[in-house]
Amino acid sequence: MRYADGKVSEIQIAYIGGGSMYWAKNLIADLALEEQLSGTIRLYDLDHGKAKNNEKLGNSVSSYEDAKSKWEYKAYETLSEALTGVDFVFISILPGTFAEMAVDVHEPEKYGIYQPVGDTTGPGGLMRALRTIPMYVTFAEAIERYAPDAWVFNYTNPMTLCTRTLYEIFPKIKALGCCHEIFGTQGLLIRMLKEMEGIEGVQRDDIQVNVLGINHFTWIDQATYRNKDLFPMYSEFVDKYYQEGFETSKNGWRTNTYTAANRVKFDLFIRYGLIAAAGDRHLVEFMPPWYVKDKETIASWMFGLTTVPSRVEKNAAAAEYYARLISGEEKLPLKASGEEEIRQLKGLIGLQSFVTNVNLPNAGQMKGIPLGAVVETNAAFSGNSLKPIHAGELPVEVNSLVLRHVMNQETILKAALERDENLAFHAFVNDPLVTIGINEAEELFETMLMKTKSYLPGWDL
Amino acid sequence: MRYADGKVSEIQIAYIGGGSMYWAKNLIADLALEEQLSGTIRLYDLDHGKAKNNEKLGNSVSSYEDAKSKWEYKAYETLSEALTGVDFVFISILPGTFAEMAVDVHEPEKYGIYQPVGDTTGPGGLMRALRTIPMYVTFAEAIERYAPDAWVFNYTNPMTLCTRTLYEIFPKIKALGCCHEIFGTQGLLIRMLKEMEGIEGVQRDDIQVNVLGINHFTWIDQATYRNKDLFPMYSEFVDKYYQEGFETSKNGWRTNTYTAANRVKFDLFIRYGLIAAAGDRHLVEFMPPWYVKDKETIASWMFGLTTVPSRVEKNAAAAEYYARLISGEEKLPLKASGEEEIRQLKGLIGLQSFVTNVNLPNAGQMKGIPLGAVVETNAAFSGNSLKPIHAGELPVEVNSLVLRHVMNQETILKAALERDENLAFHAFVNDPLVTIGINEAEELFETMLMKTKSYLPGWDL
Amino acid sequence: MRYADGKVSEIQIAYIGGGSMYWAKNLIADLALEEQLSGTIRLYDLDHGKAKNNEKLGNSVSSYEDAKSKWEYKAYETLSEALTGVDFVFISILPGTFAEMAVDVHEPEKYGIYQPVGDTTGPGGLMRALRTIPMYVTFAEAIERYAPDAWVFNYTNPMTLCTRTLYEIFPKIKALGCCHEIFGTQGLLIRMLKEMEGIEGVQRDDIQVNVLGINHFTWIDQATYRNKDLFPMYSEFVDKYYQEGFETSKNGWRTNTYTAANRVKFDLFIRYGLIAAAGDRHLVEFMPPWYVKDKETIASWMFGLTTVPSRVEKNAAAAEYYARLISGEEKLPLKASGEEEIRQLKGLIGLQSFVTNVNLPNAGQMKGIPLGAVVETNAAFSGNSLKPIHAGELPVEVNSLVLRHVMNQETILKAALERDENLAFHAFVNDPLVTIGINEAEELFETMLMKTKSYLPGWDL
Amino acid sequence: MRYADGKVSEIQIAYIGGGSMYWAKNLIADLALEEQLSGTIRLYDLDHGKAKNNEKLGNSVSSYEDAKSKWEYKAYETLSEALTGVDFVFISILPGTFAEMAVDVHEPEKYGIYQPVGDTTGPGGLMRALRTIPMYVTFAEAIERYAPDAWVFNYTNPMTLCTRTLYEIFPKIKALGCCHEIFGTQGLLIRMLKEMEGIEGVQRDDIQVNVLGINHFTWIDQATYRNKDLFPMYSEFVDKYYQEGFETSKNGWRTNTYTAANRVKFDLFIRYGLIAAAGDRHLVEFMPPWYVKDKETIASWMFGLTTVPSRVEKNAAAAEYYARLISGEEKLPLKASGEEEIRQLKGLIGLQSFVTNVNLPNAGQMKGIPLGAVVETNAAFSGNSLKPIHAGELPVEVNSLVLRHVMNQETILKAALERDENLAFHAFVNDPLVTIGINEAEELFETMLMKTKSYLPGWDL
Repeated sequence: MRYADGKVSEIQIAYIGGGSMYWAKNLIADLALEEQLSGTIRLYDLDHGKAKNNEKLGNSVSSYEDAKSKWEYKAYETLSEALTGVDFVFISILPGTFAEMAVDVHEPEKYGIYQPVGDTTGPGGLMRALRTIPMYVTFAEAIERYAPDAWVFNYTNPMTLCTRTLYEIFPKIKALGCCHEIFGTQGLLIRMLKEMEGIEGVQRDDIQVNVLGINHFTWIDQATYRNKDLFPMYSEFVDKYYQEGFETSKNGWRTNTYTAANRVKFDLFIRYGLIAAAGDRHLVEFMPPWYVKDKETIASWMFGLTTVPSRVEKNAAAAEYYARLISGEEKLPLKASGEEEIRQLKGLIGLQSFVTNVNLPNAGQMKGIPLGAVVETNAAFSGNSLKPIHAGELPVEVNSLVLRHVMNQETILKAALERDENLAFHAFVNDPLVTIGINEAEELFETMLMKTKSYLPGWDL
Repeated sequence: MRYADGKVSEIQIAYIGGGSMYWAKNLIADLALEEQLSGTIRLYDLDHGKAKNNEKLGNSVSSYEDAKSKWEYKAYETLSEALTGVDFVFISILPGTFAEMAVDVHEPEKYGIYQPVGDTTGPGGLMRALRTIPMYVTFAEAIERYAPDAWVFNYTNPMTLCTRTLYEIFPKIKALGCCHEIFGTQGLLIRMLKEMEGIEGVQRDDIQVNVLGINHFTWIDQATYRNKDLFPMYSEFVDKYYQEGFETSKNGWRTNTYTAANRVKFDLFIRYGLIAAAGDRHLVEFMPPWYVKDKETIASWMFGLTTVPSRVEKNAAAAEYYARLISGEEKLPLKASGEEEIRQLKGLIGLQSFVTNVNLPNAGQMKGIPLGAVVETNAAFSGNSLKPIHAGELPVEVNSLVLRHVMNQETILKAALERDENLAFHAFVNDPLVTIGINEAEELFETMLMKTKSYLPGWDL
Repeated sequence: MRYADGKVSEIQIAYIGGGSMYWAKNLIADLALEEQLSGTIRLYDLDHGKAKNNEKLGNSVSSYEDAKSKWEYKAYETLSEALTGVDFVFISILPGTFAEMAVDVHEPEKYGIYQPVGDTTGPGGLMRALRTIPMYVTFAEAIERYAPDAWVFNYTNPMTLCTRTLYEIFPKIKALGCCHEIFGTQGLLIRMLKEMEGIEGVQRDDIQVNVLGINHFTWIDQATYRNKDLFPMYSEFVDKYYQEGFETSKNGWRTNTYTAANRVKFDLFIRYGLIAAAGDRHLVEFMPPWYVKDKETIASWMFGLTTVPSRVEKNAAAAEYYARLISGEEKLPLKASGEEEIRQLKGLIGLQSFVTNVNLPNAGQMKGIPLGAVVETNAAFSGNSLKPIHAGELPVEVNSLVLRHVMNQETILKAALERDENLAFHAFVNDPLVTIGINEAEELFETMLMKTKSYLPGWDL
Repeated sequence: MRYADGKVSEIQIAYIGGGSMYWAKNLIADLALEEQLSGTIRLYDLDHGKAKNNEKLGNSVSSYEDAKSKWEYKAYETLSEALTGVDFVFISILPGTFAEMAVDVHEPEKYGIYQPVGDTTGPGGLMRALRTIPMYVTFAEAIERYAPDAWVFNYTNPMTLCTRTLYEIFPKIKALGCCHEIFGTQGLLIRMLKEMEGIEGVQRDDIQVNVLGINHFTWIDQATYRNKDLFPMYSEFVDKYYQEGFETSKNGWRTNTYTAANRVKFDLFIRYGLIAAAGDRHLVEFMPPWYVKDKETIASWMFGLTTVPSRVEKNAAAAEYYARLISGEEKLPLKASGEEEIRQLKGLIGLQSFVTNVNLPNAGQMKGIPLGAVVETNAAFSGNSLKPIHAGELPVEVNSLVLRHVMNQETILKAALERDENLAFHAFVNDPLVTIGINEAEELFETMLMKTKSYLPGWDL
């Protein structure tokens, strides 16, 4: 990296999973829009051809007239080449294929276990973790060897266990897990300000929140706008919209299964007095099957189940569009993704200090959770420094809910590292969504393992 | 207290719940058999007449020829008189009547939730805790005021929450919770030694165990006899008797619902690799409803459900026998109860040092459990000193099971102290036995509260 | 407080010690320069007349043309009136008179113990703490009663023990200890950037530092400017100026005893590899008497001893100037003090988020120091929220130096609260500066107590 | 090991430092007197000839008529042979020769620093630690490789750092540090009982104490005999003998520099209210030079300085006697040493459970001291199990004294492992006995390093 005249050039970034069709587009656009930074993106993917595609796309964007900075994109065939000497590493991979994802999501449905997402917790999240953790062992070992001083941004789910694995294998790694769910909740509070008091033009940074929990199961116990405590207003807001929900577009959840009407979030506020700070589709997966008991219940809470066939379909459409981008037939629109990776890069480079929420090992920032477990709280970014901010402690009745998952995650990590089926099953039956009988649980667990066994190398199945 | 010639006289003991027909008999006999100690037992009970009965019975036993020491028994009408100036306090009460106990045990059955005991955890244990905690608040305040230096032995269930309440209200109290469940497991290991290797005459103290957990959900991770590690033998023993169970009297569990064939204990060993160290009837209440799914499942695991009508019946018989004891028609047989209260008294008086398991606030003796929560581990008794012994940590997959209850207990305590129905319900639905829908759970919870409301003073029901 | 159009009005601030001639002038000027804020300053002082003086001065400044905001100043005769309903409390008092300060500083000199300041640690700091802690007990009790939700800024030394006392007495207080010593070190790094690399125009916020320690004995283990690690440059800088020192004005330390040539700071860097982040005059008081062995040694390290007679003299001059201000003969120049109180106010009001160093109880932000002890680290300010940032841990050989003072401070607190001379003496002889014999130490300690006894009410002297 | 008929045979014990003339004799006699145990002692020593001597002596004692058990002694030439497959390891070595010891003790005297022993703390203890730690690194590595399941008893000083090193290198080692200083204090309390109340025949185990601290700087905060609190009696006892001291033989300290009149122990009681539980000669080395300011001061406190020439002389006499033992000219008298190694062996073998004080890493048994530091508290021995007992916390003013040494020990460990002279010097000047100027300290430190450099391999001196 080289700093001159307020700009930083020659930044080297390795991008693991660099053959992506989704996250890559966002990154390419965000980078092109940032005039203070420039450098090289080294793309690495198991499917090298896809990385080459992004090399082509990225470099073409760099040549756009409206690109404020020129980045060089280059695909690499090995992790060691991609990593050696970089300043930053981004990891955003898909562990397995849609076939495994279908097992994660749809096998449990046969036993009445519904998961709107299935990538974080529940039977699906557990299976996905078993596949992903060994990959992250490889990444951590490679980073320790080839880029020990690099800052590593993880974007893959299950976020907590991916980040946790990096630290387990290479304890001195400078890694963080990044997720935008909190931003969504800040957005909801902004819409609330307009709805309830007609206040407009509020920016996300104006909504100051204290965040505690684990990724996708985070809670906000303090929220302010200027000198205003937002909790009393939120309480009225919840009362007002509890029955009908509150959405950007009316009944959007019926057509877009990636959205929800926030009724679950509102119900959790009424029950626990805190703002649950992830999307409803994630939240319901961490609770007992109150909200996903059956399809009627799910509909009554106004969110949908994202099916894997629908993801396959969506992917096909994306692939077509993507092909047009690669061929140059169509141009990538340069607009900000709403993610924070650029701001975070700039923070760690020393260009600006700020506070935002990230996933980091608990060094004491969250009381009541074991040290070392990965938690999501605010942290302070500054030059080559990322320090967690003391977030305090959840009330015991809520911490209890979170802790159960933390303990399960630690069990899953141990199970994945030791390829211990018995241990993995302990975590499986300890998941709140798994309220079926022990024998049915065993049957489902076995089926899921067998059907994803090609992604479980070294297991005795 | 006065020490002379190897004996200690003038010991003053307050006995709260001193109108008991059961535990009192044991205590009276145990004291009469101990020649090193003598003094006064001050009986206090809400039902003063019952305390007078035990005054009569106790003093008559003191006049038996075979009584090795002469204790004076005296009933008191107020807590303050009973407590002022005593050296020791014993608390063993029944919180509520059989009517409340019937609600604890049998209302949940209507929703398919079976509890063999219902006094520790599960819906029944929770309700019992809500009734008992305010009583213990009263005791703790009285002890702080009238007997702050006394050692306080608790025998009431829910053991953990009773002991926890004493420390919550009077943090400097010198209280311990005493339970014989571990002794039962040591007894099983003694029978195993005979069964598997023909070793006879083994005493309980020869079976050295490391204990971790919470009362009625304790685990043993090391057990030795002489220089022999008992785990390999236990593993063979479990394999041998897993199917048919292992009992003192064949099929005893069919007729005596207070016993079991240890099949649950064996199953937990196979699953988790540790010796679960309470009776099966208690253990099943801490787990998901694997062992109590329905009556067939229960029978297949070879233990019974102790019904409250059967307790009422048993009580009537006991009352008759007890009347004969009071009238002098029959003599109380002086034989040791198998409890440890005498040894513990002698330990704290300074007559002998030893190690045994007790319930105490976690001062670090059990890693992985929050400080302050009441845990059951070994502790060292010596003159005016009771110090917990570092027990280490349960493996994460077992600690997870225990921690869930610890968090629930902390929630229940808060709920009982603040008379907060919402909080109590959070604990209720977080109990592993409660896998019914949230609406059914609400209904059951409300019913149980309403039916026991006469023992919930100050609640807004 | 009322927020409208980007401004906050009706802010209520109580100022304890509001009769000050020094800090008050700074505050009055800083407030007048800040256009976003306005409200009332309630002045409280033991010497009510002096508070009235500042009422007059403050209100006259509000009428200046160049005052960007109009604050109302009002003197109150009781703490309760001054505190009731305020949003903020500032505390900046002088505990005792110059006579007591002379005892603090000059009695120890008779035993060869030199202290350039004598208000934080060493014999002088200890005596000052014994006088000050009871006053802070009073403040804490009054704040708990009259302004429990107010944010409390402490500026009085000994900073650590004043802040610690507030939390000891009222654990839920929202107090912080504010000190500008770190700013001075950031200033030194700015001058270094110019000196070593010709970089100009650097602002204090551009120098990002990680701070660990206790007030006046803080350490920096990471410092960056943009993406540049400042430690290698500092190492060269220290080598270059180790012998001659580095000052704003050459030989300034000879005439101005409030300054120093940074030789001590440089020596500590060579020894321990970290940047000691307070002024040399403070630093030497925390170490063994390496730098203050005798007057020659002191001169060789290029700092002076601030004598109390010189303070008296300076005070007389200030009083004259101050009289002219009050009379209106002279106008208070409106220029920023360089302190941070305005920024911190704005942070807590929710107008801006930022990170800076403050003194707070250790909630885990500084590993290796007992929880609850007051430490100085970075913290994040935002709307009604101040959260410490995890600072990590000092290397054991440096933590050892800090911990010794932390333990001494805890001892002093206990001694002051219990008025326990024996305990205070334990702390006295455990101070690194006290290397005289135990008998001489006793003599000195007694003398200092006796000579300041009018400020030690309730002591048995 | 083999258990049969109440006896355990075939015990394998490796004895590192097995060429000793002192501790070996005690062990040989103690083993010969114990009828329940038998097996083999494998002697290992850098001086193999000396190990052969003890092989001869040991086997000859086994043939004594009055030997109650027959042990086989065998000298080994390598650590690997000595260790492979043993059940226990004893380590009792002399790190260096009398020449190095003379540097430890007598060089500091030239600077007015007097140390009665010089093997634990102070300049002498530090130097000895620097020599010893690398040896213990070797032992720990060998034990990890050849005898990972063995219980390891350390007897070498500096006790804390030797034990600490074993755990640093091989964290799963089952090691304990054993010291008899507490026994001496229990003996003093026994003599007090006779002196003050005429009570005779008290055994050490009857004196129950709670121990907290680090080896040779331990404190007792509770002591009982039967139901009697010994603190009030000790207070009177101290008052009575404060001036003249209390010794087994009047003025014994004048002729036997290994004894003392307990005046220091009494003075510490008066100052701190706790019983300092090591011999006065050790205690004074942990405090500031209050008791060792100069020779007059030392004499006034009634203990002597053990000079190295006197040790050399004593050693010559011992060697002569020892030669007679080897040659068979004289018989080793079989009488118990007063050490506890036999009881501890029996405890860990599972023959008896008991509580005694040992040195172990802090797993929470001593609050206020960092986890992992080696502390001395009570611990419970039982079959293959040694668990620390929660000892509580020292009052802050005493913990402060202990903690300073703990931090120094951690610094010394780091310095020795990294052979870092700078770090070692930080510990050196932070020792309470080192109150000389920083330049004199540097000079002394350099001299001591240079004069012992043949035992500091790998150092850059």
